[in-house]
Amino acid sequence: MPTMNDVAKLAGVSRGTVSNYVNGVKVKESSQKKIQSAIEQLNYIPNIMARELKMNRSNLVVFIIPSTRTPFFAELTHKMQQALREENFKMLLCNSNNEIKEELEYIQMAKEQKVAGIITISYSDLAPYIMTELPIVSIEKRLSETIPCISADNYSGGKLAAQKLVEKGSKNLLVITRSTYKTEVNYGQRVTGVIDYCEQEGVSYTLFDSRTHEEEFYPELADYIGGLARKGFPYDGIFAVADQYADFCLNILESAKYEIPKDIQIIGFDGGRMYPEQQRFVSSIRQPISEIVQQSVHSLQLILQNKEKKVYQTQYLPVDYLEGITTRRM
Amino acid sequence: MPTMNDVAKLAGVSRGTVSNYVNGVKVKESSQKKIQSAIEQLNYIPNIMARELKMNRSNLVVFIIPSTRTPFFAELTHKMQQALREENFKMLLCNSNNEIKEELEYIQMAKEQKVAGIITISYSDLAPYIMTELPIVSIEKRLSETIPCISADNYSGGKLAAQKLVEKGSKNLLVITRSTYKTEVNYGQRVTGVIDYCEQEGVSYTLFDSRTHEEEFYPELADYIGGLARKGFPYDGIFAVADQYADFCLNILESAKYEIPKDIQIIGFDGGRMYPEQQRFVSSIRQPISEIVQQSVHSLQLILQNKEKKVYQTQYLPVDYLEGITTRRM
Repeated sequence: MPTMNDVAKLAGVSRGTVSNYVNGVKVKESSQKKIQSAIEQLNYIPNIMARELKMNRSNLVVFIIPSTRTPFFAELTHKMQQALREENFKMLLCNSNNEIKEELEYIQMAKEQKVAGIITISYSDLAPYIMTELPIVSIEKRLSETIPCISADNYSGGKLAAQKLVEKGSKNLLVITRSTYKTEVNYGQRVTGVIDYCEQEGVSYTLFDSRTHEEEFYPELADYIGGLARKGFPYDGIFAVADQYADFCLNILESAKYEIPKDIQIIGFDGGRMYPEQQRFVSSIRQPISEIVQQSVHSLQLILQNKEKKVYQTQYLPVDYLEGITTRRM
Repeated sequence: MPTMNDVAKLAGVSRGTVSNYVNGVKVKESSQKKIQSAIEQLNYIPNIMARELKMNRSNLVVFIIPSTRTPFFAELTHKMQQALREENFKMLLCNSNNEIKEELEYIQMAKEQKVAGIITISYSDLAPYIMTELPIVSIEKRLSETIPCISADNYSGGKLAAQKLVEKGSKNLLVITRSTYKTEVNYGQRVTGVIDYCEQEGVSYTLFDSRTHEEEFYPELADYIGGLARKGFPYDGIFAVADQYADFCLNILESAKYEIPKDIQIIGFDGGRMYPEQQRFVSSIRQPISEIVQQSVHSLQLILQNKEKKVYQTQYLPVDYLEGITTRRM
């Protein structure tokens, strides 16, 4: 494999000049041409790793996500990788499964300057482990006032869901959520939005708020919805904080011979699809995935360019209503 | 931040001894203890990047996948990341969208030894760009005889799908595929399996083989299935080479008031779920995702450990039938 010395020899310039050229330091135009021609002739590959070591920063960005196994997370991962690539970053994927150990490993890597920065949609409590000088952008969860936080406007999304259910004829709502002990996640605002709408408009609602982990949640929800369905389901509208919970309710209620959306309307949250052309999906509040991704990468770039510490407000990005098969068409 | 010199000073040994210790070179036991204690006291972080530069290999593995936006790819990505992590690799994700340019960038990185190796489920024709000494494992597509290839047993899966449709009462099958010009992808064997079963058992079948790209395929399929449905759908069983095509057919036929599976049975391929607890999914031939992942990582490790060139047979891993909502329960 040709070395930098081989290039210098063939180009008739010093090794230092080749090194400058390869590392983007300005060299004489005549030298540029000679070096480039020598590089091409020899098929020389500059050692990027050595170059980055010198610059003390890599082009790797860690993306921490609990899982890629829901349509929302899968689409977010897909678009994040594309957006990072457009900015010449490579994406290191960390499926944290909500376990903090792996996330801490990546934060350690970032401290060693092996990665340029971190974008995280983690629900773990990372704050105590993060030195504020670390380039990090958080999606949905506020970590500290000096870390940019990008979030869908969950509160307005909750209000919009309640409004749609009521406009389309539902009068008595069931609100399904799974509140974690991690209260600072903005996600909880979806429920606050629904409740505020109901209080303001005098709509009756019931809150089903589970404290279980994800795996225990589905059997619990099956028992609850299935039990109510056997005695005559008392609600004519359901809001669920995530599409997969809405879809799960749809199946239970259909198995119990309810007609959806005729008897009961359901709206979820996220608006992901199993595949882009999917036709049959639950009505939902769609998160602005492309905008979340763009804004996250943009914020990371700003941190990398301006080293001074800043105080950030959470950025709330607008959501949309997405009509699926679980609400009445009017 | 403490440096290697600080560690050497506090431990009372030379900088070279600390360097040896950090890079895994044997040093005197008494020095080991002093250095370790100094490292802990100073909270010294060895510069992994410099260490890997010296070892001329990183712990990064590139995973190239066309997209993460189908349940199969999302689950494969999730499990691949976990399996790599268990072997102390970090995963660089490359959604290639079937565009070869990005894949070639990563192959270039691999040549520069910035990554340890590549695992790819790409349908691009990478073979001409790959030097055989590059540590690479291919899923589903045979790249060359010196590159391990791991695949689901697509042929047996196709046979199994046809057998299930026939056993459950279908007599006249429609086989939906999208053949690409990239004929060496093992995926095509799914259709060969169905056809061989039908020929052997004297079952009548019709092949719908589209040559369009993915985006044009869905409208084309909608026209075809919708057109047949309007005139009285002539088939009582459908095999589609991927779950998303099967799901798409299900929606078109249900919209045309056919009862599935009573009137028409449908079996897809992959067996992914939108979320692990999903209840309503098409019947399918499930790919052994965990085994594919384990075998791929294992093969990569073998290449990294034994440098000599070997000739590999494609490894076919057994598939399962997964009963969903689109076949009759017997």
